[in-house]
Amino acid sequence: MATHKILLLPGDGIGPEVAAEAKKVLKLFEEAGYGSFETETDLVGGAAIDAHGKPVTDAAVALAKDADAVLFGAVGGPKWDKVAYEIRPEAGLLRLRKDLGLFANLRPAICYGALAEASSLKRDLVEDLDILIVRELTGGVYFGEPKEIVTLESGEKRAVDTQIYTTGEIDRIARVAFDLARTRRNKVSSAEKRNVMKSGVLWNQVVTAIHAKDYADVELEHVLADNCAMQLVRKPKQYDVIVCDNLFGDILSDVAAMLTGSLGMLPSASLGAPDAAGRRASLYEPVHGSAPDIAGQGLANPLAMIGSVAMALRYSLGLGEAADKLEAAIGSVLASGARTRDIAPAGANAIGTGEMGDAVVAAL
Amino acid sequence: MATHKILLLPGDGIGPEVAAEAKKVLKLFEEAGYGSFETETDLVGGAAIDAHGKPVTDAAVALAKDADAVLFGAVGGPKWDKVAYEIRPEAGLLRLRKDLGLFANLRPAICYGALAEASSLKRDLVEDLDILIVRELTGGVYFGEPKEIVTLESGEKRAVDTQIYTTGEIDRIARVAFDLARTRRNKVSSAEKRNVMKSGVLWNQVVTAIHAKDYADVELEHVLADNCAMQLVRKPKQYDVIVCDNLFGDILSDVAAMLTGSLGMLPSASLGAPDAAGRRASLYEPVHGSAPDIAGQGLANPLAMIGSVAMALRYSLGLGEAADKLEAAIGSVLASGARTRDIAPAGANAIGTGEMGDAVVAAL
Ligand SMILES: CC(C)[C@H](C(=O)O)[C@@H](O)C(=O)O
Ligand SMILES: CC(C)[C@H](C(=O)O)[C@@H](O)C(=O)O
Repeated sequence: MATHKILLLPGDGIGPEVAAEAKKVLKLFEEAGYGSFETETDLVGGAAIDAHGKPVTDAAVALAKDADAVLFGAVGGPKWDKVAYEIRPEAGLLRLRKDLGLFANLRPAICYGALAEASSLKRDLVEDLDILIVRELTGGVYFGEPKEIVTLESGEKRAVDTQIYTTGEIDRIARVAFDLARTRRNKVSSAEKRNVMKSGVLWNQVVTAIHAKDYADVELEHVLADNCAMQLVRKPKQYDVIVCDNLFGDILSDVAAMLTGSLGMLPSASLGAPDAAGRRASLYEPVHGSAPDIAGQGLANPLAMIGSVAMALRYSLGLGEAADKLEAAIGSVLASGARTRDIAPAGANAIGTGEMGDAVVAAL
Repeated sequence: MATHKILLLPGDGIGPEVAAEAKKVLKLFEEAGYGSFETETDLVGGAAIDAHGKPVTDAAVALAKDADAVLFGAVGGPKWDKVAYEIRPEAGLLRLRKDLGLFANLRPAICYGALAEASSLKRDLVEDLDILIVRELTGGVYFGEPKEIVTLESGEKRAVDTQIYTTGEIDRIARVAFDLARTRRNKVSSAEKRNVMKSGVLWNQVVTAIHAKDYADVELEHVLADNCAMQLVRKPKQYDVIVCDNLFGDILSDVAAMLTGSLGMLPSASLGAPDAAGRRASLYEPVHGSAPDIAGQGLANPLAMIGSVAMALRYSLGLGEAADKLEAAIGSVLASGARTRDIAPAGANAIGTGEMGDAVVAAL
């Protein structure tokens, strides 16, 4: 029986609550004979700042590198709003992404039919929506140098951030997008601002070139990032896979997620390049944040975290069948009418975080 | 009778068609005794590339500087997709913004009740929506240097764009936002990515400081740009004035515009700093693009361009009363049921560009 090493980094706010439900699910799969899940837990974000004065320790990063998959909750909250930039909670997540080489961030935006009413968009525009945003995650303005604030002789300050992309960085993320499109509706929309940014010009060139060379069977369209944001609101179903840089991906994936009305439902995967043995670093996290306003009250929706477990089973642990079962269980729990507060219609009864986790376990 | 110098830069695609309707309106105000409107017309964008090999000539820039207001149509189209980056159609617009010092871009996102059905959002979320995006327009990643693509020794290419903001640049755009908020619902939401970008950190600090010093009576909230994009989709009416940098403003204003369902209706103003005599450079343009697919067919909606004339009357020509009348005329034309194709319900009759312009003139 295979042993799977899982590192849990619950983080802050509702992170620990939803991570606890992920553990229930892993335990069940272990009992069902899908392997032995060795879970370790460590701190990240504000919790790590409080304990260690930094948002992730070298030891936690080492554990993450050594794990078959990292399950990450959420970081941040008002308590840490005033900590220095270098050790802010988000820096823990950014360091994990960079040190583990997690360049490919997959963010599905799926609208569950049963939840279409929760969307702010009209039902027919979003019902059964299924978009995949493929976001570059270790480059661009997130990590480029110089990144600094300097004081000028005049006393004024000047802040600089640097957006950098190389051919190789664009090439590898575009391949991920094209490969995934082939397993879906075979269309890739590449979003950039080539009319303003040189990185957009290079992005456009590289995507066009590898499309012609290796992926001519996949439909490719280029769209300006601002127009893409608009089109997502206007007619989201025109998209299948959207590939874009780190910053545009941050915004476009949030817009896409919000369209679905199912923010509390959406998982994400961040993947590194496979090594010689085919093993790759990976981190799975819900798209929602730490929601400090409802933390500790058992109100959070654990389905995004549980969906992240499904992605981990599929992409990192070679347990595609278990992933299918878990996703089917989520679907049947929703079909049965179970709703946490965030997805319950106004006035309807809502269940808590633990009950929702139990319902998924029961459905399995 | 005052003389008002207006430079018309119709540009490409539907630009000339909608600009022609703007001229009709100016002519009427002249006849009604609001002053003498001396209009000149010049080329910009693809039209200027075809004629002069560059997207705007020095002579046109000089005319723009000399004008009391520039009325700009739209630029770009597939015909010029392959021209060199330095002379692409958009470069004409960017040069005008920079050379005229148009640092403050005001983009109202208004949902006309009569058109709320055209929004992809549910009616109650957008009906009577009235947001103003104040976008910094002459700084940030649009103009920062280095901005280049270099070929590395390995043969790989590397593209670099640079986001730069100084205290002074942030200060002056924030003041525009606070001043405008005071004439509206007295709330400013400042959007940045301080959790990832140093320019976001400085932005946040400067906005916070001048708020405390000079605008404590205005409600201020800070919101991460990705969350702002989400919240615009989720619950747009929570916003009054949103202030942000050039790139975030590009995307957020497009999302806000699309929410209204009235893209063909939305004007914008780009303003410079007042000189000693209180005069400031200004350019007015519809938010929509050049729409090459419908160009030359008389189908375009001229109301965004006509609304831009209203903003010019108000902000540059000291004719606030005329502006009010023009906006009222637009409202009454809509109330009478006149619709161009973009805002007509499916199956309903639509009128053309010229007829819509005539209807506004008649209502005046
Ligand atoms: C927490 C923050 C640094 C992060 C990002 O900007 O990438 C988040 O918004 C996300 O999208 O994962
Ligand atoms: C045409 C383009 C350069 C421009 C921009 O990116 O600013 C446009 O999208 C806008 O928003 O005015």
